[in-house]
Amino acid sequence: MSNRGEAVAPQHWGPPYLLYLGNPADELAIKTARGVAHWRPEWCVGQYRSPACKLSLGLPDLGMAEARAAGAKTMLVGTANAGGVMAPETVADVLAALDAGLNVAAGLHQKLRDNADILAAARRNGRVLFDAREATRSIPVGTGRKRPGLRLLTVGTDCSVGKMYTALAIERSLRRLGCKADFRATGQTGIFIAGDGIPVDAVIADFISGAAELISPARDDGGWDLIEGQGSLFHPSYAGVSLGLLHGSQPDALVLCHEPTRRHMRGLPEYPLPDLEACLQANLAAARLTNPAVKAVGVALNTSNLPQREAWAACRAISDRLGLPCQDPVSMGVEAIVDNLLACCAA
Amino acid sequence: MSNRGEAVAPQHWGPPYLLYLGNPADELAIKTARGVAHWRPEWCVGQYRSPACKLSLGLPDLGMAEARAAGAKTMLVGTANAGGVMAPETVADVLAALDAGLNVAAGLHQKLRDNADILAAARRNGRVLFDAREATRSIPVGTGRKRPGLRLLTVGTDCSVGKMYTALAIERSLRRLGCKADFRATGQTGIFIAGDGIPVDAVIADFISGAAELISPARDDGGWDLIEGQGSLFHPSYAGVSLGLLHGSQPDALVLCHEPTRRHMRGLPEYPLPDLEACLQANLAAARLTNPAVKAVGVALNTSNLPQREAWAACRAISDRLGLPCQDPVSMGVEAIVDNLLACCAA
Repeated sequence: MSNRGEAVAPQHWGPPYLLYLGNPADELAIKTARGVAHWRPEWCVGQYRSPACKLSLGLPDLGMAEARAAGAKTMLVGTANAGGVMAPETVADVLAALDAGLNVAAGLHQKLRDNADILAAARRNGRVLFDAREATRSIPVGTGRKRPGLRLLTVGTDCSVGKMYTALAIERSLRRLGCKADFRATGQTGIFIAGDGIPVDAVIADFISGAAELISPARDDGGWDLIEGQGSLFHPSYAGVSLGLLHGSQPDALVLCHEPTRRHMRGLPEYPLPDLEACLQANLAAARLTNPAVKAVGVALNTSNLPQREAWAACRAISDRLGLPCQDPVSMGVEAIVDNLLACCAA
Repeated sequence: MSNRGEAVAPQHWGPPYLLYLGNPADELAIKTARGVAHWRPEWCVGQYRSPACKLSLGLPDLGMAEARAAGAKTMLVGTANAGGVMAPETVADVLAALDAGLNVAAGLHQKLRDNADILAAARRNGRVLFDAREATRSIPVGTGRKRPGLRLLTVGTDCSVGKMYTALAIERSLRRLGCKADFRATGQTGIFIAGDGIPVDAVIADFISGAAELISPARDDGGWDLIEGQGSLFHPSYAGVSLGLLHGSQPDALVLCHEPTRRHMRGLPEYPLPDLEACLQANLAAARLTNPAVKAVGVALNTSNLPQREAWAACRAISDRLGLPCQDPVSMGVEAIVDNLLACCAA
C-alpha cells in the first residue's frame, strides 16, 4: 500500500556519483562520502563543495551541470550538517542537482521525498530520489531454504568495530586473487558503496532474515558474497537485527570483528564487551540453524587506538588463543584471513 | 513524520467492546474475537452478526446503536473473511459503527485508515481508528538498563504453540492467588485482550528490544508482568523478533511453550523442532545478557492433539527430564508452574 517512489521515474539510482560535501562541520559529516571515495574511486566523478568548505576528498571540484556533463548520474548526500535535518542550503543544492539532471541519493534521517520542493523538482525532471536509511523494497518473510553460493558474514563483539570495512577488504583481496566476490550491503554507507543493498535495521522486524536472503541470493558462479554485518548478538539494543541477519545470510564463513580498547558496548556504559571466544561460539551456534557447516575463518581487529607494536601483539595473542588468523584490515590487510577462508571453504 | 492518527480524535480506543463477527467463513475467521470473549468476558457487551452468520460466541446479538447504548466504546474487527481484505459488507458495517459513535479497532492486513470512506466517517464522528497489526507508537531504541519489577516471558520451540494463552493463564492464576499481575501483549489478539500493547513483529528492526522495554515498564508494586512471547529463537524466519523481545523483557522467569506433535517448524518442512532442553538453554543464555538471574520455571505443553492419557504421560516425561513442572494450560491449568514461579522468584 506504499506510495514510495510513485512520483518519480522508475529507473534505479546509482553511480557514477557526484559526492556532495556542502559545508561540513567536521570530518564526521563527510564520513560516508569518504568511504565511497575510498572504496569506489572509479565511481566518483567529483565532489561538490560550498565556497566555505575546508575539507576535501581530493576529487575534482565540480558544479552540478559540470558533473552531469562529466558522466555523473547521481549526487550522493552522505550526512547532514546538524541533527540529520537538511539545511536550507542543502535543500537548494539538491534542487539544483535535480534541475541539472542528476538523481539524488541521501542517507539523512529526514527523507528527501518528505520535502515538497525536492519531490516536485524530481517529478519535473524525471529524476530518482533515494533514501538509503529506508527499506523501500518489498521484502518476503525469510524461508531458511538452503540456496547455492558461498557466503561470508562479518560479525562483531559490538557496533562500529569495522564490519563493513572488513567485508570490503575481503572483497578486494579475493578479487585480486582472481576470485569472483561481491560485497553485499546492509547499511547506509555500504549501500552507496555497493550501489545496492537493504538497510537491514530499517526493515519491519518480521522480515530481517528475509532481507538478508534477498541481499545475497542464490549464486552458482563459484563466487563469494561478502555480507556486511550489523550490531552484535551481545548488544541489548540491536541483537535481534544481528540474529536475523545471521540466519538469513546462511554464512559458510564468519569473520569476527573487534575493537580491543573499547570499554563497554556502544552507548551502554553498564554493558562490558563479550569475551571473544564466547562471542564467536554464540555466533557459530546461532548460524548453524541455517548452515550447519559454518566455520569461523578469522578475526579482524580494529587497532586504530593502539600503538603499532601493541597492535601486532594483540593480533598474535588473539590468533594464538582462538587458533585463527587475526589482522587489522586497515594496517595489516586481510590476506591471512582470506587464505584461511579459501583453505577452509573451497567451492 | 508519520501522519498516523492525525485525522482522528486523539482519545484511546479500548473496551467495552462490541465483537464483530460479520459473516465468517469458519471458526478461524473469528479466532481473535473468541480469544477476547474468553479472556475478557467482562469487556464484551455483545456480538454483531450478519443475518447469514451461523457461528456465535454466546454473547447478546446487538446492532451498532444498541451496543453503543449498552456501553460499548469500540467495535473489534478480528479477522477478515478472505485474504485479509475487507469485504464491501464489512466496510459498510464499519461505517455504520462509526456513525453510531463507536471507535473501530481491527487486526486486518488492510488498514482501516487506508479506506477513504472509513477515514472520512471517523473524522465526521470524531472516532478513533486502530489497526492492531501496526506499531503506531514512537518507540525508543532499547537501553538494556535494568528496571524494577518482576517479569515472566513465555518462549517457544516454534510459532503458535500457546505463548499468549500461557501468559494469560498465568495472569489469571496469579490474580486468583491475590498477586498483582498484568498480561503484556505483543501481538494482535493479545493487544485486544490487554486493551494495549505493541505488535512487536511490526516494529522497525532496530527497535524490537525498545518495544519490549516500553511494553513492560518499571514497576514497584511487587506485581508481575506476564509478557506474551513471539516466534522462536529456532525459527529461521522470526528469531530476530524473539531475541529482541527476550533482551528487552529482561525476564526473571521463562516458561517454555511446546506442541509435542508438531513435526517441523511452522511453514518450514525442512526444519525440525529443536530439542526442548537445547531450546531452553539457548533462551536462558540469551536472556542472561540483560538479566543474569533469569530462571526457567516451567513448561507449557499444548496437548490438544494428544489423547488425554498420552498428554499426562508427555507432561510427566518432560517434567522428569527438565526438572520443571510441565502442564497443559488449557486442560490442566498452570498452578504447578505458578507455584514454582512464586517459589523461585519471590519479590
